[in-house]
Amino acid sequence: MTDREPIEFYFDIISPYGYLASKQIELLAARNGRDVDWRPVLLGITVMKIMGMKPLREIPLKGDYLYHDAARTAAMLGIPFRHHGLKGINSIAAMRAFLWIKSFAPLTAVVFAKKMYERLWVRGEDITDPVASAEEAEKLGIEAAALLTAINSAAAKQALHDTVDAAVSKGVFGVPFFIADGESFWGGDRLPMLQHWLTYHSWSSE
Amino acid sequence: MTDREPIEFYFDIISPYGYLASKQIELLAARNGRDVDWRPVLLGITVMKIMGMKPLREIPLKGDYLYHDAARTAAMLGIPFRHHGLKGINSIAAMRAFLWIKSFAPLTAVVFAKKMYERLWVRGEDITDPVASAEEAEKLGIEAAALLTAINSAAAKQALHDTVDAAVSKGVFGVPFFIADGESFWGGDRLPMLQHWLTYHSWSSE
Repeated sequence: MTDREPIEFYFDIISPYGYLASKQIELLAARNGRDVDWRPVLLGITVMKIMGMKPLREIPLKGDYLYHDAARTAAMLGIPFRHHGLKGINSIAAMRAFLWIKSFAPLTAVVFAKKMYERLWVRGEDITDPVASAEEAEKLGIEAAALLTAINSAAAKQALHDTVDAAVSKGVFGVPFFIADGESFWGGDRLPMLQHWLTYHSWSSE
Repeated sequence: MTDREPIEFYFDIISPYGYLASKQIELLAARNGRDVDWRPVLLGITVMKIMGMKPLREIPLKGDYLYHDAARTAAMLGIPFRHHGLKGINSIAAMRAFLWIKSFAPLTAVVFAKKMYERLWVRGEDITDPVASAEEAEKLGIEAAALLTAINSAAAKQALHDTVDAAVSKGVFGVPFFIADGESFWGGDRLPMLQHWLTYHSWSSE
């Protein structure tokens, strides 16, 4: 049995659905006696390209639906949320910063990820510039200059590259994505199914 | 108020998730005092093209995930299901037949759609040839020869074309898709959200 394995939570700060899931997964995990292992992916930059897909917002019909859906889902769950309207943002610096912090302070890294989510999806401020990551990290007691140096290093680039590769090799193709005891779940709307799996470790209805 | 409006259920016999939803939507509607209006769409032929998407099974990573996911969802819900493994199938004849039957016997048309779903997703038999539709319709008391003549008519072609167009103009981009009192829902995993909407007609959590 692997009952004590953490639930792998694949996230990207850039994804509104990743943000919404980040507000739900820890309670679900705790109820089941599990930890959550937060693992970054680069949704737009790497994953969608492998799949040959356009950014969701640019897909006719689906883009409009999802724009509305993220907001109503947040409202239904009582999660603070707003569409930021920013263009051309990316999460590379934020995800490198997350991995660097995780390497020496994993719990702080999770708080950092939450702060970055809040910055983008609650306050509507950009996350692209490394300075944004440095600002949020500094509030958690991490030296801004050290972070800025670290995330520009070849090691930080390689670490993120390897992490995204590892996710893709496990079949991760979207955000949020969860892996628990060998089963994969895509989308926050599948959290009840994840709960079913953690309870029964079976799909049979008999 | 439009509380008595039927729930629009957009389906395509070719979609396994459409099949799974077809086994759930009527009970949900009945619990809420609603009827279900079954409306055909041509997922692969029309909708995916508008969106610039490949068939799901051909998308790297996602295709494999969804193949497994349809089967586990069926098992979890206790719905008979098997992957048919057939290649090159399409549902044009079946959907024309559905619309034709609906034009004079709407309740029978729904039973016909269920029989076609069962044919493909339970028994694993092809549905492409018009004869398949004629066979299933005949069991419901509809003359096979009349059906075969009807679905080859220009009127039948036009009716399906117009129906799919109308769906797209309402923003339908996938299957299953539900519209209830102005709100759209994509995917069977959103049925709890549809229930929330039917109950509260609001997304606010306050």
